[in-house]
Amino acid sequence: MSDTNTVNTLERLANLLRIHSIQSTQEANSGHPTSCSSMAEITSVLFFNVMRYDPKDPRNPAADRFVLSKGHCAPILYAAWAEAGAFPVSDLTNLRKINSDLEGHPTPRLNFVDVATGSLGQGLGFACGMAYAGKYFDQSDYRVYCVLGDGECSEGSVWESFAFGSFYKLDNLCAIIDVNRLGQSDPAPLQHDMETYRKRVDAFGWHPIVVNGQDVTQLLAAFKEASETKDKPTCILAKTFKGSGLKGIENELDWHGKPLGDKANEIIAHLRELVNEKTLVRPQISKITAKVAEIKKDKEIKLSSPPNYDGKKEVATRLAHGTALEKLGKGCEYVIALDGDTKNSTYSIKFRDALPKRFIECYIAEQNMVQVAIGVASRQRYITFVHTFACFLLRAADQVRMGGISFTRTKYVGSHAGVSIGEDGPSQMALEDFAFFRTIPNIVCFYPSDAVSAERAVELAANYDGAVYIRTSRPNFPILYKNDEVFEIGKAKIVVESSNDVCTIVAGGVTLHEAMKAAEKLKGVGKAVRIIDLFTIKPIDRDTILKSVNATHNRLVVVEDHYPEGGLGEAVMGALAGQTNVKVIHLAVKEVPRSGKPAELLSKYGIDAEHIANAVEKLV
Amino acid sequence: MSDTNTVNTLERLANLLRIHSIQSTQEANSGHPTSCSSMAEITSVLFFNVMRYDPKDPRNPAADRFVLSKGHCAPILYAAWAEAGAFPVSDLTNLRKINSDLEGHPTPRLNFVDVATGSLGQGLGFACGMAYAGKYFDQSDYRVYCVLGDGECSEGSVWESFAFGSFYKLDNLCAIIDVNRLGQSDPAPLQHDMETYRKRVDAFGWHPIVVNGQDVTQLLAAFKEASETKDKPTCILAKTFKGSGLKGIENELDWHGKPLGDKANEIIAHLRELVNEKTLVRPQISKITAKVAEIKKDKEIKLSSPPNYDGKKEVATRLAHGTALEKLGKGCEYVIALDGDTKNSTYSIKFRDALPKRFIECYIAEQNMVQVAIGVASRQRYITFVHTFACFLLRAADQVRMGGISFTRTKYVGSHAGVSIGEDGPSQMALEDFAFFRTIPNIVCFYPSDAVSAERAVELAANYDGAVYIRTSRPNFPILYKNDEVFEIGKAKIVVESSNDVCTIVAGGVTLHEAMKAAEKLKGVGKAVRIIDLFTIKPIDRDTILKSVNATHNRLVVVEDHYPEGGLGEAVMGALAGQTNVKVIHLAVKEVPRSGKPAELLSKYGIDAEHIANAVEKLV
Repeated sequence: MSDTNTVNTLERLANLLRIHSIQSTQEANSGHPTSCSSMAEITSVLFFNVMRYDPKDPRNPAADRFVLSKGHCAPILYAAWAEAGAFPVSDLTNLRKINSDLEGHPTPRLNFVDVATGSLGQGLGFACGMAYAGKYFDQSDYRVYCVLGDGECSEGSVWESFAFGSFYKLDNLCAIIDVNRLGQSDPAPLQHDMETYRKRVDAFGWHPIVVNGQDVTQLLAAFKEASETKDKPTCILAKTFKGSGLKGIENELDWHGKPLGDKANEIIAHLRELVNEKTLVRPQISKITAKVAEIKKDKEIKLSSPPNYDGKKEVATRLAHGTALEKLGKGCEYVIALDGDTKNSTYSIKFRDALPKRFIECYIAEQNMVQVAIGVASRQRYITFVHTFACFLLRAADQVRMGGISFTRTKYVGSHAGVSIGEDGPSQMALEDFAFFRTIPNIVCFYPSDAVSAERAVELAANYDGAVYIRTSRPNFPILYKNDEVFEIGKAKIVVESSNDVCTIVAGGVTLHEAMKAAEKLKGVGKAVRIIDLFTIKPIDRDTILKSVNATHNRLVVVEDHYPEGGLGEAVMGALAGQTNVKVIHLAVKEVPRSGKPAELLSKYGIDAEHIANAVEKLV
Repeated sequence: MSDTNTVNTLERLANLLRIHSIQSTQEANSGHPTSCSSMAEITSVLFFNVMRYDPKDPRNPAADRFVLSKGHCAPILYAAWAEAGAFPVSDLTNLRKINSDLEGHPTPRLNFVDVATGSLGQGLGFACGMAYAGKYFDQSDYRVYCVLGDGECSEGSVWESFAFGSFYKLDNLCAIIDVNRLGQSDPAPLQHDMETYRKRVDAFGWHPIVVNGQDVTQLLAAFKEASETKDKPTCILAKTFKGSGLKGIENELDWHGKPLGDKANEIIAHLRELVNEKTLVRPQISKITAKVAEIKKDKEIKLSSPPNYDGKKEVATRLAHGTALEKLGKGCEYVIALDGDTKNSTYSIKFRDALPKRFIECYIAEQNMVQVAIGVASRQRYITFVHTFACFLLRAADQVRMGGISFTRTKYVGSHAGVSIGEDGPSQMALEDFAFFRTIPNIVCFYPSDAVSAERAVELAANYDGAVYIRTSRPNFPILYKNDEVFEIGKAKIVVESSNDVCTIVAGGVTLHEAMKAAEKLKGVGKAVRIIDLFTIKPIDRDTILKSVNATHNRLVVVEDHYPEGGLGEAVMGALAGQTNVKVIHLAVKEVPRSGKPAELLSKYGIDAEHIANAVEKLV
């Protein structure tokens, strides 16, 4: 095909994609045809010339990756894959219907979507993860493309990803910003100021190329230049118009997220003339040329050696986590760890020191870190463990939420939970982490209370086919379990019991150890208690709790180093709802705490041994 | 005082601040003396020359503002205020002690701290809010200073704030980046590459000035240049050394967050020689020169007119919210609204259209938006309402958390909650918002189910002296209440009842209307039910729920358009914990939903009238 032919074909395909975007949103009576239209040429050039992939095998690990960061342009993404042959074009009219996977925003329910988008500003971080994996782990030549909107470039997460991409010299990554000038309710802040975009992208260490994004020839040249640019990623800054090619709508405000309605037929008729589909010869999709080594997956991922504690020395669960992660990594080549400049606190540094090539330092940019982890974990090749203080994982709460919609297997590890961290004060204390993480569908939330269970939590996490949250603690704890103790997801442990227990106590982390001290005190006054270590807060072991409570005169104390909402207490009370005659006292941190020694704080906020013992006395 | 004298005095004061930082962290046996030392000259120049304030009246509204974004440098902040005369220098040794407000990271428990910091990357956004209020609302000449660390410049939120600051031409704002090269566990990504910092800051529209941050003369000149720079904010890029002036520690890794231990005495002795405190004449603090008009506060803030619905037309609570906000703003001059380019969806556009000067368009940068709102609301002058889709408020979860520690009065309004939004799909559906927001201590969480209660929620929110979350919904709902119905925080409404109800249903928003449809169905088979509209999810009206449940044979159905964790269900079950003989069925969205029509989704995920009726039948 000659160059003129190529250009002409891609132009006509762009208009065909416009038609599909208009028609499918007409049919759905909702959606974003004008945002699709501005990126029509970008899409046709990428899907029908630049990208090397197999429409019949979209998850081929050697294929180029595509991330649609502006997820509301799903209709044109679907249209491109349909026209490429991934599924029948006639299915496009099922857009946004309840029985179709062609959802309003893309999710990995579709085999050609690796990561869910639709919350803006996240796609580039996912793409960074894919590119990092391609360059450093797979060491393969596949390339990663990501289309962003201009509106979402106001999101700081985008600039975290720009910084990451240049720092790690991801020259296999190409971002395209569809600068169509108009946001949802107003023009985007920079409008068509391409020079400022260029300066920002350049300052963040990328190779900027400004083009007319409606011009196929310029786009082809830009993608070629991108593929030849070494040691830095490229960002194509495409000046476009929202509603491009749609007469009477192009470059007009108030057309965001609206089907064309009455105007559709005339516009489609005009576009059809430009496409002239009868004579349109669709080009062959570029073949995959990269090679990717197969990763041999273990049936079960195991710690390279079992926990090994003498039971005398106290050990922090964050340290045990680091120990286990190192052992896990030694035993399994596809485990990856990430940290946000807290590795000497979370102890992911143990993994870094042992396996530096599989560790990604993400600096203090938690949103991008989580996005990178989700990107690296896509196509199910790698298992990623993300680390920072538990409270700072909240910085990436929306990314974790979107990870849920991506069905990611990413494991989030939050250290320094609760008031037990002590003097650093409330800004560093996670007291709402379980409330948030528990909402993610199918996540497993671990709360290990000693080093042995912490190590096993890491092992179970690696084997669980879904997202995981592990809460680790700062202080040293006594060892509770034998090195060969067996743990399961959703199975609690009874750590103290007798035949004449008067009350059940459910606790975790530091409060479990306080509960054990309380048990000693209570023993002194002739009262035996049963103590449960939940191990996983979600799923929760309702049976064990219920049996214990029934066996202890239906008395229950739940005590947690967490705010009262959404943590152990509500999880337990929710699980027991509808149970008759259970008397409950719930101890939790009920106000914004302050700085102090851990023991002082546990006392001040009512979750130490003394308060636990008093609660039991009150119930009995 | 001659210039040479000024410089010499400020140098000596810098070393005095170093000594205090070392001593207080020695005493606390924790803290960050090396991070304090790099900013010692910056601090002495700001507090003892540049800033105009009154140490005896730190919250004077006309004073210059100071935000310590790198909150872990609290010791030098406290030292500066003590040396300025705000409190006795001898108190500095109470750092991090449980009975002292000199916490590990600054909080507004101290009268010289406006906003809590310690979660990095947030200070500049708070400062942007203060500067915006100073320039546009107060129209005053006070200036705002913010010191950031270099490590935190990896946070995207910082770049959101840079973009905001230049977009709104905040020339009363001066940021200082303490580029001390070293992060917690590694060098910061740009190390001492001042030119790249300069390029980035310049590209984001600020006036960059690169200085030796250990050089008092250069700093004095830079602050002068900043004060003379018009139409854009200034960023002083201060090249410094971590542990500057601390022999054997300066510029060394592995000294993050550690007191000096054995090395302290020798270093202090050396610094004492440099200070020569006996001959040190402390300069007068620069006097406040700006004027600020008093804001006359209303005893009670009222809607300018009561709700006015005819009861026939269905109205969305998001629209009623917009209507009420406009009326509130018309009646009260210190109400401010912010939105993140969703104002035509959240209906904050009604406020913008009526009161454009009190509306801040923050574009798609939710973190900065929340930070700006908290900054504007500081010193208790303005009441801020922040708007976006409820799920995207999660983007600022860590900011909301820090707002809790700041005891902010900011009101967060999240629209488009739950699967009832329909076709846009899960990325746009808030299904975890209550789980997160409920954790904030003392927050009030409103969930209005009709237009009348939505308007009253806004009014109550404005009058509540603390943070508020309001969840609004996308679909139109029937009107439930008379225009003169009185609402209170923590008081539920019984919307359906009879003397022979067989079951209580607790619901909210769309599920309340589904429950009312279920009641009609059940009436058809001779079963009457009682329906509760909680109105506020936190605080929860335990009494009304309990009385209803007891009056309806201890049967309860809770149904919510939210994931099962941390929402209405767990709030209700937590409130009823320990109550005997209550039988509960909890209906909620139990998996990642998909796109579809609202009614289809309510049915598919088991929270529509039919499922509610079935649940009642099952209990009865």
